[in-house]
Amino acid sequence: MGLVVQKYGGSSVADAEGIKRVARRIVDTKKAGHEVVVVVSAMGDTTDELIELAEQVSPIPAGREFDMLLTAGERISMALLAMAIRSLGHEAQSFTGSQAGVITDSVHNKARIIDVTPGRIRNALDEGNIAIVAGFQGVSQVSKDITTLGRGGSDTTAVALAAALGAEVCEIYTDVDGVFTADPRVVKKARKIDWIGFEDMLELASSGSKVLLDRCVEYARRYDIPIHVRSSFSGLPGTIVSSTNPNKPEGGEMEQAIISGVAHDTSEAKVTVVGVPDKPGEAARIFRAIADAEVNIDMVVQNVSAASTGLTDISFTCPKTEGQKAIDALGRVKQGIGFESLRYDDAIGKISLVGAGMRSNPGVTATFFEALSEAGVNIELISTSEIRISVVTRGDDVNEAVRAVHSAFGLDSDTDEAVVYGGTGR
Amino acid sequence: MGLVVQKYGGSSVADAEGIKRVARRIVDTKKAGHEVVVVVSAMGDTTDELIELAEQVSPIPAGREFDMLLTAGERISMALLAMAIRSLGHEAQSFTGSQAGVITDSVHNKARIIDVTPGRIRNALDEGNIAIVAGFQGVSQVSKDITTLGRGGSDTTAVALAAALGAEVCEIYTDVDGVFTADPRVVKKARKIDWIGFEDMLELASSGSKVLLDRCVEYARRYDIPIHVRSSFSGLPGTIVSSTNPNKPEGGEMEQAIISGVAHDTSEAKVTVVGVPDKPGEAARIFRAIADAEVNIDMVVQNVSAASTGLTDISFTCPKTEGQKAIDALGRVKQGIGFESLRYDDAIGKISLVGAGMRSNPGVTATFFEALSEAGVNIELISTSEIRISVVTRGDDVNEAVRAVHSAFGLDSDTDEAVVYGGTGR
Repeated sequence: MGLVVQKYGGSSVADAEGIKRVARRIVDTKKAGHEVVVVVSAMGDTTDELIELAEQVSPIPAGREFDMLLTAGERISMALLAMAIRSLGHEAQSFTGSQAGVITDSVHNKARIIDVTPGRIRNALDEGNIAIVAGFQGVSQVSKDITTLGRGGSDTTAVALAAALGAEVCEIYTDVDGVFTADPRVVKKARKIDWIGFEDMLELASSGSKVLLDRCVEYARRYDIPIHVRSSFSGLPGTIVSSTNPNKPEGGEMEQAIISGVAHDTSEAKVTVVGVPDKPGEAARIFRAIADAEVNIDMVVQNVSAASTGLTDISFTCPKTEGQKAIDALGRVKQGIGFESLRYDDAIGKISLVGAGMRSNPGVTATFFEALSEAGVNIELISTSEIRISVVTRGDDVNEAVRAVHSAFGLDSDTDEAVVYGGTGR
Repeated sequence: MGLVVQKYGGSSVADAEGIKRVARRIVDTKKAGHEVVVVVSAMGDTTDELIELAEQVSPIPAGREFDMLLTAGERISMALLAMAIRSLGHEAQSFTGSQAGVITDSVHNKARIIDVTPGRIRNALDEGNIAIVAGFQGVSQVSKDITTLGRGGSDTTAVALAAALGAEVCEIYTDVDGVFTADPRVVKKARKIDWIGFEDMLELASSGSKVLLDRCVEYARRYDIPIHVRSSFSGLPGTIVSSTNPNKPEGGEMEQAIISGVAHDTSEAKVTVVGVPDKPGEAARIFRAIADAEVNIDMVVQNVSAASTGLTDISFTCPKTEGQKAIDALGRVKQGIGFESLRYDDAIGKISLVGAGMRSNPGVTATFFEALSEAGVNIELISTSEIRISVVTRGDDVNEAVRAVHSAFGLDSDTDEAVVYGGTGR
């Protein structure tokens, strides 16, 4: 029996009852003979409430102080969880990110982990304790200030500790039963995936699947730490994310599933730069302007230019929340670049089909487009990687498109099995 | 212009408005040319809410985890306060007790400060920052765990930092205008004291005055740090607590005020051990039993024994909350000691008259008792120190007794000047 790292999100520890339920689950794991390290997020809406307070006292919260503020949330939940475990008769100690040895760079509010030195955790385990660690936070190597890891930070804390401690698995507890072949709120017949490889999970995560963030999956892939995504409410086995399928013997003859799942994303907007002179360096100038404005872009599409005019159109997608920044930045370079106009459209949606098996299955793209066509969904942009096809459609068409594609690739379950239990954690 | 340490209690930073008001006051001090270190308590009822959560998850919260939980409150207020100051255009950095170098012993929930190493604070000040420090918390020297200082902890943090940094004054901001000659809620004509010596302040604090706790005053006396107790609401000058009166030249001819003030306390109960054999060692056995039960006793009174029986009565007072423990402990040793019975009375009150000047003024005791007699107040116990006289009366008589004594010693103000602004901080 090896070491298990478990991560519980905010919705799992939203109140005293939730904390007690989680404590029982942790104790069960300990009783089964495992060493247990638990990473916990702030309770329920605590973080949002702290952010609101910060906005009330200061229009632009400062990085260092903002991190100090936000990390209070995890201190509360970790201390309460340790108390709850102790009241069940088991030894538990809680540790801040700093105490747990989560060393980061100095970029406040979105620090990167640069080292993990879990000496105090190892000692606590050796003394028979369950170790509780505050997620989402670390300490900067240079300034010794408290930092936060940004979105998905607690999941990343869990995977990083699992890697540093040589855990046999990192269990990410959330409010759904695992990773599904599509968002269960959209596709009632979505199936829970028992196993998925790191590559496919990365593509799903970066295409709109909210269960795991790509950053955490990337970390797990680099250190080859299996992730078990599962529900803290139901207790059912969830989805294993790892390099090789544990249920299929090495060299076995079964083929990998062609398609892992369908992801969608309606949080993006489409920007089209119309009438760009088709000569070297124009695209670079456009995307340098975007980068300088710190806008994150996703898809980029440029088609061949019209021979008659020598002009081309360049489209890209970015988060709706950053759309205005992108338009402003491009407006400032319009004269210099000499394009004709800008078009902005935030009523779009993106549907992505993901599966490592599509590499060796030439019919996938055709089936995908046929499904969309039969559903009457118009395609506006297309972008592909080796194991993913993404299209942009009207936002209103997205749900219908996801269901059509899900069905066309035989992913539909025989029953409506998906259950969503609560909110989403951090 | 020297360094000033300011401490703000929970009622001063109860909400975003309070935090902004405190931030403006701090910036004003900085603008006046001072270096400023600010110690802050948790916002309003935060600590009580955290305690309630702890009780919900665990019947007996563990020391280490309980401290980790409670210290989250000060992290929140200090980070918000630093943000609010920055938004006023001044540099501020916040520090946990550990970061500020508040080193304690390992007694969780009521740790003692054993060293203060404020190197990071000194650096922050040198760089032009206002330093914000979390009150009430430290880090244990041996285990490196987070500790809390118990009741009055934030005041003690402030005085300890003032001593370690060589501050010219430690300003304790609260919800009253200073230390009064009596509790303004009881005596409308109570006067604000402009200056009071450490000795008298210590006696007042240990006799029921709630403005400062004896622990904090004792620390200030040891390191000779002047305390300025004042209101964060009114901004008026408050009470200076120090070794020598700054308004009276050394060797000046003015006499010290005979009486500093009248304190009262209705939180205690009286226990009488009736019919104790009057022989050596009996009192020791009684108070060993009390001490082993960890009951804190205040007054102890034994009168001469009746010659006819050779028996005496021993009375003592202790907090009402510990009364049952005391009775149980004495019940267990009744047989061994051979006393007759126990009497328990929690309807009592204590009135104390405090003033270093009473040493050289023989009429004080007589005037005190005459005032009580004229007010029709019966005296049940008497106990005196060199600069204090305390009596126990019926609890119902306390307010009347305080007013009578206050008036008899000429302490009444011409006007009703006392104002109470809010709740009480920690």
